[in-house]
Amino acid sequence: METKILLPEREMPTRWYNALPDLPTPLAPPLDPQTHKPLTPDQLEPIFPKAVIEQELSPKNWIDIPEPVLDIYRLYRPTPLIRAKRLEEALGVKCRIYYKNESVSPAGSHKPNTAIPQVYYNKIEGVKRIATETGAGQWGTALSFACGMFGLSCTVYMVKVSYNQKPYRRSLIQAYGGEVFASPSDKTRTGQAMLEKDPDCAGSLGLAISEAVEDAATHDDTKYSLGSVLNHVLLHQTICGLETEKQLAMIGEKPDYLVGCVGGGSNFAGLFLPFLPRRLAGEKVRFIAIEPKACPTLTRGDFRYDYGDVARLTPLIKMHTLGHSFMPAPIHAGGLRYHGDAPLLCNLVAEGLVEAEAYHQLECFDAAKLFLRTEGFLPAPETSHAIKGAIETAKRAKPGEVVVFLYSGHGLLDLASYDAYLGGKLTNFEYPEEHITEALKACPVIEE
Amino acid sequence: METKILLPEREMPTRWYNALPDLPTPLAPPLDPQTHKPLTPDQLEPIFPKAVIEQELSPKNWIDIPEPVLDIYRLYRPTPLIRAKRLEEALGVKCRIYYKNESVSPAGSHKPNTAIPQVYYNKIEGVKRIATETGAGQWGTALSFACGMFGLSCTVYMVKVSYNQKPYRRSLIQAYGGEVFASPSDKTRTGQAMLEKDPDCAGSLGLAISEAVEDAATHDDTKYSLGSVLNHVLLHQTICGLETEKQLAMIGEKPDYLVGCVGGGSNFAGLFLPFLPRRLAGEKVRFIAIEPKACPTLTRGDFRYDYGDVARLTPLIKMHTLGHSFMPAPIHAGGLRYHGDAPLLCNLVAEGLVEAEAYHQLECFDAAKLFLRTEGFLPAPETSHAIKGAIETAKRAKPGEVVVFLYSGHGLLDLASYDAYLGGKLTNFEYPEEHITEALKACPVIEE
Repeated sequence: METKILLPEREMPTRWYNALPDLPTPLAPPLDPQTHKPLTPDQLEPIFPKAVIEQELSPKNWIDIPEPVLDIYRLYRPTPLIRAKRLEEALGVKCRIYYKNESVSPAGSHKPNTAIPQVYYNKIEGVKRIATETGAGQWGTALSFACGMFGLSCTVYMVKVSYNQKPYRRSLIQAYGGEVFASPSDKTRTGQAMLEKDPDCAGSLGLAISEAVEDAATHDDTKYSLGSVLNHVLLHQTICGLETEKQLAMIGEKPDYLVGCVGGGSNFAGLFLPFLPRRLAGEKVRFIAIEPKACPTLTRGDFRYDYGDVARLTPLIKMHTLGHSFMPAPIHAGGLRYHGDAPLLCNLVAEGLVEAEAYHQLECFDAAKLFLRTEGFLPAPETSHAIKGAIETAKRAKPGEVVVFLYSGHGLLDLASYDAYLGGKLTNFEYPEEHITEALKACPVIEE
Repeated sequence: METKILLPEREMPTRWYNALPDLPTPLAPPLDPQTHKPLTPDQLEPIFPKAVIEQELSPKNWIDIPEPVLDIYRLYRPTPLIRAKRLEEALGVKCRIYYKNESVSPAGSHKPNTAIPQVYYNKIEGVKRIATETGAGQWGTALSFACGMFGLSCTVYMVKVSYNQKPYRRSLIQAYGGEVFASPSDKTRTGQAMLEKDPDCAGSLGLAISEAVEDAATHDDTKYSLGSVLNHVLLHQTICGLETEKQLAMIGEKPDYLVGCVGGGSNFAGLFLPFLPRRLAGEKVRFIAIEPKACPTLTRGDFRYDYGDVARLTPLIKMHTLGHSFMPAPIHAGGLRYHGDAPLLCNLVAEGLVEAEAYHQLECFDAAKLFLRTEGFLPAPETSHAIKGAIETAKRAKPGEVVVFLYSGHGLLDLASYDAYLGGKLTNFEYPEEHITEALKACPVIEE
């Protein structure tokens, strides 16, 4: 048995899998934030290219990956599926654990899987510049990388607290050619208004989204790009699961559990969605979403319509939410600090097809440390949640069962978090019921 | 044609190639620093395990890689050989460029290739702890990783200026379980003496070596480990070239040029040494060593006996040297700032079998930027020299020729250097002839 299952490049999938037509219950449509009527595609055109809007709503099961996208994918794809034998031995489990290693991409995470096609579709529609927000920095890095590959300009609004705390992330975005502004910035009316009110404002993801959307909406040559949550993003990420399916088949394995961490949900959905048809056909395979206890969207949130951002600028989407004004504690897995989740993922959670578990950050760092000292690689704090989930799943699994988890990114630009962890400076966060009940009151009341 | 040439794991070489018996002129023996007589193996026993000393002097062409070493190698090996098609297109060259990507190792460079066997041999001889020095931090990271894999303790003396400038490197060494002391430290007599003389001493690689050697020599359960220069280190690195040979054969290619950056010489030697027998048999293949103009050992140094360290504690070795007291300018490729080079490599340079070229750091960063924006990956400053050398080689090459270079490490923990480069804060360094002539006067006069 080989440690690394390498899919030959010629076997790389050339189509993405679109789960929309296969959902047992159709997805609730996004609503106009003012009128509460279903959104029409043309309402999205000021900020997204047409091809992306079409994919967002597509009824087709398979969508061809354009050749120029495949060409950039080949810089790092197919990614390896790795048997975590030393981790299994350390745990003393009799099941087999595999991880799909998306940290090998140039940007260090799964994010380029969607950044590359999004930039490509913008390019062929004549867009010259793309604006986006970034919190932890993974998404900004991926978009800047992809823009560089296709010769587009890239503007990243980076939450000011991250901008100051993670100078290396900012440097990497700049090395790829992107421009980075600390948000709130003086580049948008939203940012200016906030700075006038509070010059020391540390920023938030919701605010950075508002700045990027305003930038795109007010410049003809510029569009906006989002790195998670939306259907087309999950679609692009299915290449992870499609490769995993082929890699498991190469060694005659079938997955019993697919595990991933969830912020907006794109990496986990990318892994498990291609296995959804099997599950719907009655095959025994479980999908387990892992989230932080400090932001327990799937495990403690309500499944209802809510805004995607703090400033209520986005369409209303039906999802598990903690309320759009919920401010998660400053845990180190910045990429998992989102009050909602991808509607497609939430739909399947509501159907009982996806299970969810929440863990504390300290036990996740413990899992990351065990992984580092057995498998050798340093996981991102977000990824540490997937590792913790996989470990707990493996402990419960029967001998011979197969646990597969998605290793979403490396932690080489998160070493300050490891310093804090190893130095005993991290604490756990968990909210009393009243806190969540109170936050949920901010959700709009929509008649369905 | 596929972009990535992946060697199946079962094809991973199980023996290292030892070039010592194949040298046209035998290697000059290391000499006792006091008596100037050839060193006997037992003189090395206080600091190295017996198996390593045996390999240092072995007359055998092939040495089996122990199974426990292969087992750890499999966490990241075989490493991919990648066709740099987008770089070729950007350059407009008609030759083909490939790079052997050693940055995919857990520690992010080629260094684990020797750290793993060195720790293994120490372990089976009952050693409990290994002491070493690190400058740029790559070697300290690799040794800490390898010690963690085999359950040994690891003590790293890190040059104080790097310790303060590169906190993430230090964090990564600690995350793997190693302990790190800023050198000069209060842990050794050498360090204490230096701190007494100058409490603000910023340290140097020579001093850190002295501290690590003293630590090993004064503790029964502790040995010392070196990450470059010595024969056994180059031997372990030949796995890079042996894999490359198989990968090129898989696609029916033969290399015309093998290119690598040289600090101590181990990554470059690891790439080209397995191709030495072909060259000696008359096949047309050129070996091109790339070094910084700020530390031009092979291009401007003398080939003669000198000390390996500033403090004159090491044996005398015959190599290209700028004089053991030469202090190279503070260029960002810290791993290339060494006054000497591996004796085995120097022997072949002296024979005219290896060519050497020197470049300025600014043109190397320019090359790194072009690589980043075409191939997507961020190279270490050291690696940028190999890229610059490969680009210049490719420009001179004939259509259809094959250029292969070794991509020794990623630059994700060197982003401060990229900040300085992109911010226009870097300058070049080059020494006038008198400076080098003067430095060479410190070399001992040995009658051969």
